[in-house]
Amino acid sequence: MGQFAIGIDGGGTSCRAAVINGTGQVLGTGKAGAANILSDLENSLINIVAAARHALTSAGLDPEQVYKLPAVIGTAGANVGSYGKRVEGALPFASSRVVTDATIALQGALGDADGIIGAFGTGSVYNARRDGVSWGIGGWGFVIGDQASGARLGRDLLERALLAHDRVAATSPLTNAIMAEYGNDPERVVEFAHASKPKDFGRYAPIVFDYAGMNDPVAIDIVKTAAKAITESLDALLWPECPSICLLGGLAQAYRPWLDARHKALLAEPKGDVLRGAVELAAKLLRDGKGSWA
Amino acid sequence: MGQFAIGIDGGGTSCRAAVINGTGQVLGTGKAGAANILSDLENSLINIVAAARHALTSAGLDPEQVYKLPAVIGTAGANVGSYGKRVEGALPFASSRVVTDATIALQGALGDADGIIGAFGTGSVYNARRDGVSWGIGGWGFVIGDQASGARLGRDLLERALLAHDRVAATSPLTNAIMAEYGNDPERVVEFAHASKPKDFGRYAPIVFDYAGMNDPVAIDIVKTAAKAITESLDALLWPECPSICLLGGLAQAYRPWLDARHKALLAEPKGDVLRGAVELAAKLLRDGKGSWA
Repeated sequence: MGQFAIGIDGGGTSCRAAVINGTGQVLGTGKAGAANILSDLENSLINIVAAARHALTSAGLDPEQVYKLPAVIGTAGANVGSYGKRVEGALPFASSRVVTDATIALQGALGDADGIIGAFGTGSVYNARRDGVSWGIGGWGFVIGDQASGARLGRDLLERALLAHDRVAATSPLTNAIMAEYGNDPERVVEFAHASKPKDFGRYAPIVFDYAGMNDPVAIDIVKTAAKAITESLDALLWPECPSICLLGGLAQAYRPWLDARHKALLAEPKGDVLRGAVELAAKLLRDGKGSWA
Repeated sequence: MGQFAIGIDGGGTSCRAAVINGTGQVLGTGKAGAANILSDLENSLINIVAAARHALTSAGLDPEQVYKLPAVIGTAGANVGSYGKRVEGALPFASSRVVTDATIALQGALGDADGIIGAFGTGSVYNARRDGVSWGIGGWGFVIGDQASGARLGRDLLERALLAHDRVAATSPLTNAIMAEYGNDPERVVEFAHASKPKDFGRYAPIVFDYAGMNDPVAIDIVKTAAKAITESLDALLWPECPSICLLGGLAQAYRPWLDARHKALLAEPKGDVLRGAVELAAKLLRDGKGSWA
């Protein structure tokens, strides 16, 4: 095996890369644009490589080394059809291993231990590793999935605001604040909803938690509905000896107080982030050659 | 006032027109393509006029009479911004009155009486008339509204099917049937959801009712959630002396057994359909000149 390897978090907002040496030490990091291999394969490839080159430069190495080093890339969609293999085939690294974003998140949070992770950002998804075997649930997206996502919290909020406007459901300080934001014009709320992407809805998530903390009944109801979805998903994954549950993502802290006591008792801080997970898998690749951790 | 008038139901699937004489008798009817004034004003205008011309021909009258006769057009979006006025200004009739689809639906179902209508098709919307004053709630669309629509029933079903697939919620014959339809591949369900419009989701509504009738627990839960939304909306509109509630739309019959007993007791058959409503308003226009029923 060679001297260096590259670990890459190919994320939907940006790509981050780290160069490591044979002992797993990070020598340099780099960043580039987004990787969305399902929707924009070409730019994803460009950004993955750019992040790696920046990491090499930051480590004081020649960026042309990308052609000589092995790399591990974690990115959403790697398990969809042939996308992962296509990315592996198209990348210029000496050898490439493309795994899902969940695989590097799990490795980052748990290291080599068993456990469960739940990630709550614009979307929501769960993964578990038991006796070294990992699997996941959720993450099916905004329209018919992601029940505990920021996007769902925001969508539920706007729906509740319109029901309150129609006097079908009770108003609250939060529904009043939302309607005021749109000049008390339901048509403008609908216009926003039809023009918006999940991340636009997700911007309302912190407000929902803020108002829930101030005992707003509608906010509490929305958060409790999402927390119930988390409870049901964790219960679907949990086994008696499961050592820990790690919550990841921008809403992880906000959800903590709302979780079921059985799950709270298992909460642990993640050991590291997703890039850390990619780095650890790259170190394994450097150490063992072809890893068996896909 | 003249001898004839035209009533037009400018619907999102097709336009239907009827020519009436001074006594309100329908002399002929005609049909043409869709009117969606918010999304396609130009073709809406073409189709409204085409339906009217066909109605005149069917009545044995000269289609060029469109320039000489008054017309009442009911169409969705007539109350949004200046759309209604723009349509009135652009139509070639001797005089045009553009009202909402709800106005002609209410007139068709209730005639001149007070009461409530609830329309359940791809969307869901409610209107009421009390002491001659009408108002409406709901109808805010697929993303954050239309809780009792066919589209929402279908969306809820696919969401429940994925939760069952993940073993987060119980499976049922219905969730099994849905997953089998997509080759037990959740990615394919997600793909459908992301590529689909409300009417595509709405195609699952009859299946949900069928399975609910066969005691499928998931189907019953989905229908009960929608029926609860109907109950809450009707309660928001209802007043003590309200004489009747009419259910309209493709799902009206299917919802009947699921309604609250208080509302069931008030159910009445609609007197006529939406075109009937447009015809009645056209007759008023012919009789009274400028009507005050907008």
